[in-house]
Amino acid sequence: MEMIKKILAVNAGSSSLKFKLFSLKDEQVLAHGQADRIGLPESTFVLKLANGEVYQDKTGIRTQEDAVEKLLSWLTKSKIVNDLSEIAGVGHRVVAGGEYFAHSTLIDQDNLQKIYELNEYAPLHNCHEADGIKAFMKLLPNVPQVGVFDTSIHQTLDQVHYMYSLPYEYYEKYKVRKYGAHGTSVRYVSQRIASILKRPLDELNMVICHLGSGVSITAMKNGQSYDTSMGFSPLAGVTMSSRSGDIDPSALQYILGKETDLNFDQMIDILNNKSGLLGISGISPDMRDIRKAISQGDERASLARNIFINRIVRYIGAYYLELQGIDVIAFTAGVGENDIGIRKEIMNQMSCYGLIPDYDANQINGIEKIISAPNSKIVAMVIPTNEELMIARDVVRIAKISD
Amino acid sequence: MEMIKKILAVNAGSSSLKFKLFSLKDEQVLAHGQADRIGLPESTFVLKLANGEVYQDKTGIRTQEDAVEKLLSWLTKSKIVNDLSEIAGVGHRVVAGGEYFAHSTLIDQDNLQKIYELNEYAPLHNCHEADGIKAFMKLLPNVPQVGVFDTSIHQTLDQVHYMYSLPYEYYEKYKVRKYGAHGTSVRYVSQRIASILKRPLDELNMVICHLGSGVSITAMKNGQSYDTSMGFSPLAGVTMSSRSGDIDPSALQYILGKETDLNFDQMIDILNNKSGLLGISGISPDMRDIRKAISQGDERASLARNIFINRIVRYIGAYYLELQGIDVIAFTAGVGENDIGIRKEIMNQMSCYGLIPDYDANQINGIEKIISAPNSKIVAMVIPTNEELMIARDVVRIAKISD
Repeated sequence: MEMIKKILAVNAGSSSLKFKLFSLKDEQVLAHGQADRIGLPESTFVLKLANGEVYQDKTGIRTQEDAVEKLLSWLTKSKIVNDLSEIAGVGHRVVAGGEYFAHSTLIDQDNLQKIYELNEYAPLHNCHEADGIKAFMKLLPNVPQVGVFDTSIHQTLDQVHYMYSLPYEYYEKYKVRKYGAHGTSVRYVSQRIASILKRPLDELNMVICHLGSGVSITAMKNGQSYDTSMGFSPLAGVTMSSRSGDIDPSALQYILGKETDLNFDQMIDILNNKSGLLGISGISPDMRDIRKAISQGDERASLARNIFINRIVRYIGAYYLELQGIDVIAFTAGVGENDIGIRKEIMNQMSCYGLIPDYDANQINGIEKIISAPNSKIVAMVIPTNEELMIARDVVRIAKISD
Repeated sequence: MEMIKKILAVNAGSSSLKFKLFSLKDEQVLAHGQADRIGLPESTFVLKLANGEVYQDKTGIRTQEDAVEKLLSWLTKSKIVNDLSEIAGVGHRVVAGGEYFAHSTLIDQDNLQKIYELNEYAPLHNCHEADGIKAFMKLLPNVPQVGVFDTSIHQTLDQVHYMYSLPYEYYEKYKVRKYGAHGTSVRYVSQRIASILKRPLDELNMVICHLGSGVSITAMKNGQSYDTSMGFSPLAGVTMSSRSGDIDPSALQYILGKETDLNFDQMIDILNNKSGLLGISGISPDMRDIRKAISQGDERASLARNIFINRIVRYIGAYYLELQGIDVIAFTAGVGENDIGIRKEIMNQMSCYGLIPDYDANQINGIEKIISAPNSKIVAMVIPTNEELMIARDVVRIAKISD
């Protein structure tokens, strides 16, 4: 029997491990699933095959290593993998790469240590991701493990764009600067744009709107990240599901003076988890709930949606001018792929640039589509993102895996 | 002898009182000066007349009331005022007007109390300004006192632009929102623009760049403030002399985790006083010193200047799109009126809008001038600001003073 090489894309969290298994040859998804509640009571494991079969397992999962062991055993039990040697490489999503990881990287013990060290830039993420990598290194010791960093694409930013206007020593001593995020998504989308338009990526100036529960706007100049709305952390930039985006720190000081039982760490927690669409509307962090509330006449829901659109427009405007004009604007992720009205409003506001929307083409959800008119000066597109595929492709490229 | 009516414009600070005396008829400055080190050892008072005469006084000034008493006595001693009844009105700069003062307002006891109450929005300013008004109300009891608020022009902002994406209750309970600043300057400049271009103010879409030691960018739609870069406080927005402008609050949390002897209030103090041009360059908050350092090859000075320009460009881009195009861009205040190179770089970047700079016309300092070419799609202008004259005009208008 011919051995079909496969690539795993993995996203390890504090109590979860998500995975997608690709066939190397045709990039088809053979299986996907996740372990949940790792280390907690009633942990679960589910594996779904492309043919619809579902395997579930409720025996305890105490650690990332347990989860990886279970994944590997189910991959063989389900016969989706005949032998673990078919797994030619594993790619791992890592949130924070700092200034150290400017590209996706083959992980060895030294690099793994570095990912643990960078935990202070993403305390909710990096250490768990490193735990996941460590487990795979132990259980598949001869398989290349590749780290794919959310931040690395933005390492092309000029110092003018990534520095804060703080005392310079905070950069020298602690590397406080803009790192951005959503890099894997932005890379995937930008490559799809170049492919669909049949133009070289390095000739395109673009604004990529990643509108998910996290939201970022990225300016790309000649195919490279030139500026991006998220900052030192994913808190900064535009209004998100439950994150505030940009805010005057003096306002926080004022609130802390009033709410005397709150401390600054708790305030940051509120900015991350109780703000954004949720905070303004008081209803939900989910744009679908916001839309439903608007249809029932809720004014704060309407305000939340209008603020969401306005903050995106502000960044598009800023980046259009920084880039001296753009060729393409693209919408991706949950809201970007599925909210026809938001895309329409943003495109309408961009008419002063000579963007001409194609309203009929815009009536789609979740598929690749050009949604501007043929004579539009800017091409507007919907590109469903696919971070796992981008991770799998990085594994193939970085580990030099051939068919 | 004919009585010539005069108007005083006053700016009271924590330990200073600045003033300018205008003749009502022709708006000429008859005298100006200031009291300094009020309540401190070696307080000083100086009065300069239009004819070049200078009066100085070193007797102690303990309070704003002492300063006002001295001012009034020197105005008569110097014969610039024959009788105090010639002072037809006094205008007072007030930093924070909150949502209460949407216009310049005749101050009575109730309003005065309100200005004291608004002190929590501007703790370094409002109470001292109120002390100044109180002193004038006592010493010139029959003269109208008018409060002119830095924030009032921005009360035309839509809620979409002034709300933060915070839990809504912080607005309901504490009125945390964008207030902006520099309103008196922006009003003066926008009125001059309409006058010079001989166009109705309410037909003009403009971006006003107030580039002083504080920096703000204001979008004006049909002559009204539509959005502005400063926020709840003057800390937000673009890079300033010593203020950081926009920053990711998570970066502050990270720094506070490292610099364990700092608390959040001290951090805010650093953002206000040790950041911006000063923080990046490590040299000076003054753009003239930065320029000198650049000419000597200093790289961080160069970085500071480029960041300063970039942040202005970002806001111009955001506001151009919010306004769907603009008719006018104007530069004012210290840097805006006097830094030829910064104006040139900003105009160059705006060429993608069809702005055509007139480089020869731009070779000026501190005078009103159109600095774009006749065929430019956007008119670029230098307008030296004159907040005191705006204050004096408001006194005349609000107190209905006639010649």
